[in-house]
Amino acid sequence: MRPSSSPSDGLLGGLSGDPGVDAELTDRALLQAMLDAEAALAGAAADCGVVPRPAAEAIAAQCHADRYDPAALGRAAEEAGNPVVPLVRELTAALPEDARAWVHLGATSQDVLDTALVLVAVRAAGPLLGHLDAAAGAAARLAEAHRDTVMVGRTLGQQASPTTFALKAAGWLVGLVQARTRLRQVRAALPAQLGGAVGTLAALGPTGPAVAERYAERLGLATSPLPWHTRRQPVLDLAATLGGLLTATGKVALDVGLLAQTEVGEVAEGGAGRGGSSALPHKRNPVDSVLVTSAARRAPGLVATVFAAAVQEHERAAGGWHAEWEPLLDLLHLAGGAAARTARMLDGLEVRPDRMRANLDATGGLVLAEAVAARLARALGRSGAHDAVARATRRPPFRDALRADPGVRAHLSEPEIGEALDPHSWLGSAGLFVDRALAAYRTEESS
Amino acid sequence: MRPSSSPSDGLLGGLSGDPGVDAELTDRALLQAMLDAEAALAGAAADCGVVPRPAAEAIAAQCHADRYDPAALGRAAEEAGNPVVPLVRELTAALPEDARAWVHLGATSQDVLDTALVLVAVRAAGPLLGHLDAAAGAAARLAEAHRDTVMVGRTLGQQASPTTFALKAAGWLVGLVQARTRLRQVRAALPAQLGGAVGTLAALGPTGPAVAERYAERLGLATSPLPWHTRRQPVLDLAATLGGLLTATGKVALDVGLLAQTEVGEVAEGGAGRGGSSALPHKRNPVDSVLVTSAARRAPGLVATVFAAAVQEHERAAGGWHAEWEPLLDLLHLAGGAAARTARMLDGLEVRPDRMRANLDATGGLVLAEAVAARLARALGRSGAHDAVARATRRPPFRDALRADPGVRAHLSEPEIGEALDPHSWLGSAGLFVDRALAAYRTEESS
Amino acid sequence: MRPSSSPSDGLLGGLSGDPGVDAELTDRALLQAMLDAEAALAGAAADCGVVPRPAAEAIAAQCHADRYDPAALGRAAEEAGNPVVPLVRELTAALPEDARAWVHLGATSQDVLDTALVLVAVRAAGPLLGHLDAAAGAAARLAEAHRDTVMVGRTLGQQASPTTFALKAAGWLVGLVQARTRLRQVRAALPAQLGGAVGTLAALGPTGPAVAERYAERLGLATSPLPWHTRRQPVLDLAATLGGLLTATGKVALDVGLLAQTEVGEVAEGGAGRGGSSALPHKRNPVDSVLVTSAARRAPGLVATVFAAAVQEHERAAGGWHAEWEPLLDLLHLAGGAAARTARMLDGLEVRPDRMRANLDATGGLVLAEAVAARLARALGRSGAHDAVARATRRPPFRDALRADPGVRAHLSEPEIGEALDPHSWLGSAGLFVDRALAAYRTEESS
Amino acid sequence: MRPSSSPSDGLLGGLSGDPGVDAELTDRALLQAMLDAEAALAGAAADCGVVPRPAAEAIAAQCHADRYDPAALGRAAEEAGNPVVPLVRELTAALPEDARAWVHLGATSQDVLDTALVLVAVRAAGPLLGHLDAAAGAAARLAEAHRDTVMVGRTLGQQASPTTFALKAAGWLVGLVQARTRLRQVRAALPAQLGGAVGTLAALGPTGPAVAERYAERLGLATSPLPWHTRRQPVLDLAATLGGLLTATGKVALDVGLLAQTEVGEVAEGGAGRGGSSALPHKRNPVDSVLVTSAARRAPGLVATVFAAAVQEHERAAGGWHAEWEPLLDLLHLAGGAAARTARMLDGLEVRPDRMRANLDATGGLVLAEAVAARLARALGRSGAHDAVARATRRPPFRDALRADPGVRAHLSEPEIGEALDPHSWLGSAGLFVDRALAAYRTEESS
Repeated sequence: MRPSSSPSDGLLGGLSGDPGVDAELTDRALLQAMLDAEAALAGAAADCGVVPRPAAEAIAAQCHADRYDPAALGRAAEEAGNPVVPLVRELTAALPEDARAWVHLGATSQDVLDTALVLVAVRAAGPLLGHLDAAAGAAARLAEAHRDTVMVGRTLGQQASPTTFALKAAGWLVGLVQARTRLRQVRAALPAQLGGAVGTLAALGPTGPAVAERYAERLGLATSPLPWHTRRQPVLDLAATLGGLLTATGKVALDVGLLAQTEVGEVAEGGAGRGGSSALPHKRNPVDSVLVTSAARRAPGLVATVFAAAVQEHERAAGGWHAEWEPLLDLLHLAGGAAARTARMLDGLEVRPDRMRANLDATGGLVLAEAVAARLARALGRSGAHDAVARATRRPPFRDALRADPGVRAHLSEPEIGEALDPHSWLGSAGLFVDRALAAYRTEESS
Repeated sequence: MRPSSSPSDGLLGGLSGDPGVDAELTDRALLQAMLDAEAALAGAAADCGVVPRPAAEAIAAQCHADRYDPAALGRAAEEAGNPVVPLVRELTAALPEDARAWVHLGATSQDVLDTALVLVAVRAAGPLLGHLDAAAGAAARLAEAHRDTVMVGRTLGQQASPTTFALKAAGWLVGLVQARTRLRQVRAALPAQLGGAVGTLAALGPTGPAVAERYAERLGLATSPLPWHTRRQPVLDLAATLGGLLTATGKVALDVGLLAQTEVGEVAEGGAGRGGSSALPHKRNPVDSVLVTSAARRAPGLVATVFAAAVQEHERAAGGWHAEWEPLLDLLHLAGGAAARTARMLDGLEVRPDRMRANLDATGGLVLAEAVAARLARALGRSGAHDAVARATRRPPFRDALRADPGVRAHLSEPEIGEALDPHSWLGSAGLFVDRALAAYRTEESS
Repeated sequence: MRPSSSPSDGLLGGLSGDPGVDAELTDRALLQAMLDAEAALAGAAADCGVVPRPAAEAIAAQCHADRYDPAALGRAAEEAGNPVVPLVRELTAALPEDARAWVHLGATSQDVLDTALVLVAVRAAGPLLGHLDAAAGAAARLAEAHRDTVMVGRTLGQQASPTTFALKAAGWLVGLVQARTRLRQVRAALPAQLGGAVGTLAALGPTGPAVAERYAERLGLATSPLPWHTRRQPVLDLAATLGGLLTATGKVALDVGLLAQTEVGEVAEGGAGRGGSSALPHKRNPVDSVLVTSAARRAPGLVATVFAAAVQEHERAAGGWHAEWEPLLDLLHLAGGAAARTARMLDGLEVRPDRMRANLDATGGLVLAEAVAARLARALGRSGAHDAVARATRRPPFRDALRADPGVRAHLSEPEIGEALDPHSWLGSAGLFVDRALAAYRTEESS
Repeated sequence: MRPSSSPSDGLLGGLSGDPGVDAELTDRALLQAMLDAEAALAGAAADCGVVPRPAAEAIAAQCHADRYDPAALGRAAEEAGNPVVPLVRELTAALPEDARAWVHLGATSQDVLDTALVLVAVRAAGPLLGHLDAAAGAAARLAEAHRDTVMVGRTLGQQASPTTFALKAAGWLVGLVQARTRLRQVRAALPAQLGGAVGTLAALGPTGPAVAERYAERLGLATSPLPWHTRRQPVLDLAATLGGLLTATGKVALDVGLLAQTEVGEVAEGGAGRGGSSALPHKRNPVDSVLVTSAARRAPGLVATVFAAAVQEHERAAGGWHAEWEPLLDLLHLAGGAAARTARMLDGLEVRPDRMRANLDATGGLVLAEAVAARLARALGRSGAHDAVARATRRPPFRDALRADPGVRAHLSEPEIGEALDPHSWLGSAGLFVDRALAAYRTEESS
């Protein structure tokens, strides 16, 4: 019998995820996080004198995931609607008689599961940030290495004006760094949950708040001034951050995929042997780009689900809370796969400056029409310059039409036309922007 | 190492899914469906004389999922971006030399995976329809049993006018039957996929269309006039249908959850021992209602993902296609859990006509204000009647205020007031609507 | 001119919508539809002898939108939470004394607004279907005109194998025809709504069902066996259909945008003077492709909203229902704009067979590698053929490498190589598929 | 009066929006923001010596929205795909000859429209924050006024344990304050956009970055280290923040709606004359709760759309960018309506402590089962206490069963049972949590 919400983990899950991040998202990892919450609760209560220290130690001694069977707990969860109830039962049964009364003291199931999901997110953020570091590092190297590699900038799918590959890579870098910064912030702010049945901590009496504080400290999590059972902003922040991460990696992948088109050919994914086709012997598919793009397409729906689940009624919700669990894990899973593949994709990216230059030149200088117009504007005014240039664009190649146009030649010499048509002379602040992106990256790195 | 897209299958997946449906969604089930597609392709090609019959038979003999390791295939999938490439490699390696050339003939990976996902959906629809049958049957029984059980109808959360519990159950029934009808239709229309690398079936030469037709026949699937590699309407139809199913079950669950509120208490979920709380000994939570509600909250995001993935470029897409796989399986998984739980919830539903009647009477007849106004309108006009009634509502209890109001008593006798305040006299067409719903259900059942 | 889907209708709304469809979506159009529902209710009740004919006629005489101020009604709507309450008040006030009691008889606000939104959808479907007809016609003409125009098929962004532009256009055609068929079906099935306060039609007494039937007939709408106040499948069907339409048009637009890339250049949007850039004198942006793509990106979120709104509690919902109104109008608005622009885009599409051929040839025959392998497979087996071809792909140009390879030349003569490298010889069933698509289109047209 | 988020602005838009916020979202407001961007660009360029000061002044003099016709610009926008192109044309035409060359210098359409949408968001945030202030203030007043008002806490729809209305209001307060804090942060961080055709500011030469900085300063907006044409994190931050706001207000509305149910009756919306029904003279619908709930249902789909639009290719995107405009305006519109209505709803909320107390007592003390178990646990152990309490719950009323149970009475005296059943003795840290929430609110207020 299968107990999965994504029933094809082995066959398909590896294509959307990453082993390092996924290792933090397994049943066993979630179970361990639930047990960590129980152990921390007992320990915190002992710290505050509410639970005898030996009982807390006995509890902690049983809080190892390998002592429990996740599948059996999952089946038993059916009865209560969550896996904490059977886990507490099994944990209690494993204890010496005199420790049993102290398990799960003052807590409700949601306290343990919310805290466990937060712990899982924090732990998954470790390898996830590692992949983002690697991806940002690779983007930074590309920006440095291709500072002078001119290429055409494209807008609405059309060649527009020159830019540099460095600026494109710098844009990717900024996006990746923003995603990393936000993930670090959200990780640091994710709070432990402890409120008891209705968020009053009644069963812990006056020591409740102190226990809650120690509980969060022991788990290395932030504290929340009040329980957040039905106020899900921390979860929204996490989901939006992961959605932003998948947007940033998705943008890199989309650009790579378009630049790798056969007719464009300005980059190719590295990795010998990857991207083979089952039907076509000659093809090399940009597999990482495809899979990262795919992950990005799934993010908005999952983000929407987390937002839709977040309007939760009364003291604890009937359904909204339950609807969060798997989408949050899915977002972490997709973010892991996307970050890891983006790192690999950028690290191995084959960049082809010759194709970039050839594509830039393919329209006979047309992509420098703005540059020519700017020079002519000094003499002809903007409107006159625009008209002269538009005239030349209608008699391709543009370069020759300009030279042959008396209205142009009256104001621009042959060398001046040549200079106007040199893409290196029409890069504006590309270099400065690249420097800024690299400087910001390095500052963040060293902080 | 974990390879899952929903990393907590054992612990959490059972709460959103159903074992019967989930059994059709496992890695092994998907792998078998992929192998079924390969076997059907070889067989169809043999039927058309393109492949030697013994080769087709040798291929079919290897098309058993238990000969392959889904996790290993999943890892190998990374290289090509889908699991069909390594599967074809392994399948080929398992064959005698002279059969090898005939594996996967003329097909592209997407042909096999699209067809496999369609097969999985068709197979999962079996137990899914079984659960819908059970749920509809239970709703029909409730409608029959409570034909005369009056209760208050509620609009915008407020008590409004009388209705019957039968009509409420009939509404659930109609929703469940609509979901079932649509699922049957979509199941019958799901087409096999066979187009080859770019949808021309070039590698099969002139026999391509005949092979495609036999392929679909052998798999028991519909045919498509042209390949649908990047025209995903069949997938949209499936997703929208499952979304509709989750809406229909979600409506039942929402109603049950609200009627089961402590203060309302008109129904309770059956199932001794279920719904216990980890903190509160007295509580009995409506667990099935909660979990079905949770599944309904996740449907819109998944439906949106499938629609977002469906705009696919060129002959085969770079990412859109890949983004469909897991969300479609998730929708089937959630639909299975929701349908099964709705069947159980309705089958075991404890209905409390006394509480219904008590709630109906709690406002002293106020919920029959419309009935009183209707009677008064004959004499006072609608506006006058509305005013008279509104006047009485301001001096509760309504019943007594009516009796004490000379403007009312001038037109309604004591027995007439009593009759107007009898909810059974203000049920309108409730009975007829229940009959219609049951008749439509029985007609569909017997067809 | 229309008043659109955003606070900036005039400035921005025209870019997402179409004047013809938008004219059916205005305040005035919705108001007229509400009044049509009121008039039909009075008329139906008169038909059934429940309302005096003269009163029904007096009511109908006031049911003209230009007698009311939508903005004032909108402001007054605030008080009741919907615009029907103030409309009924104003309509009543406009009547002679003896007709007043018969306005809105037995109905609830939702009856009128649901019916009005259905009417608006049905009416908007008129011009919408007109645009789909035009788009399908243009796609069919392209498929006919380019039956023999070879081009390269692309998969995962890479050149793969030859196809024809006719097959691409035929794929668009099938998608558009599917969208049209579904829209016609959903239009014919959209039901009128009449249930009264809690869906029992209590205030109409035993004639309720007859009135409801006449009401639907008078409005030209389908009937529903029971009221569907909180069973929103008709609305889901409409939303999913419009989402499918936006997917079908989005696919055309995405393909056109990619084919129009400067480096590909196989098509261009027609329309002199369109697509100018504010900065670049030489640019011609594929504006319709961009705007239809944009509309497609917005569809999934709106579809999700309608599904999320559809789980509605009790007899009439507190919020779910209200959440449908604007998203449904937005979907109709976007569908109108997308269909109209797709029709124009396809009708004026500039197709460049020479560029298609040049791109097909650009890789020196590589895109026919599968064809060469297929020929070689007869002699070398599939694996041997695959290896031989792979060998040749590593020494470009492929064409020459093949000729120079003794292992190839042992089995293929110069003319055989030439034939294998002729794209016309590797189109498979492209022609047949085009014929099927056109035949299906013509059959539907004449039905 | 406002021109709304749907084709039926006047009729329906007022029900989702708020006049004050909507006034910042009109065509005219957006047009003015576009003109402000143009004026700021000219002024900034003059500050940097790139444009003659008199030309900049002449341009600024024409940058008043009332000199242009939004509808005409909207129609002309069709040609270029955005309204900036025709606006620049009209603005240029309105200028003296020698100023014309300096309009829109170095900018691309997206620079102006991105900046204008950011300005609109910043300006709409003004009244929006005002509504949040009012809503937070009202929640704080409720928390203060009802510090000792006990009520039952509800989990999964069931009565669970006592809490206070103050703690419920404090939870609302924290959510509203979080939404406000995030909105202030996002408002302060929204950057101006200036990059020119491909994000290099080429046409401004070496002064580009200085002009960009002055441009942002003049507009009172943040600067961005590089242009963000296809890196949409600022837009994601805005959308997620508005989605969070709609979640926070939606939670309040959901709670109010549930507490206002006829059977619960613990609160009612104020506002004489509001909430009338078209069919039922006695009903008072919780209109603000309904409309705020409705807005919350629409948020996730719009947030998803903005995330889906954010993966944008190359230097400027073909469709993704365009897809953002209306959803962002819709989110601002909905947030305005939700915040304003939440403020009104909380400000006028009728709280009924007597009903709260009656509901708390309705189960004969059952909701204090946890309290009784806690007291018994000292003597019987947790398991024994749980069993004793469970035994008593099966013989209602609970209160009497406890008194009659020898196993209980052996350990608890009559007064001790009475004390255990007093809800005031089982409020845990409710008071402390309320104090924390109020203190945090006051600190933020005074900062």
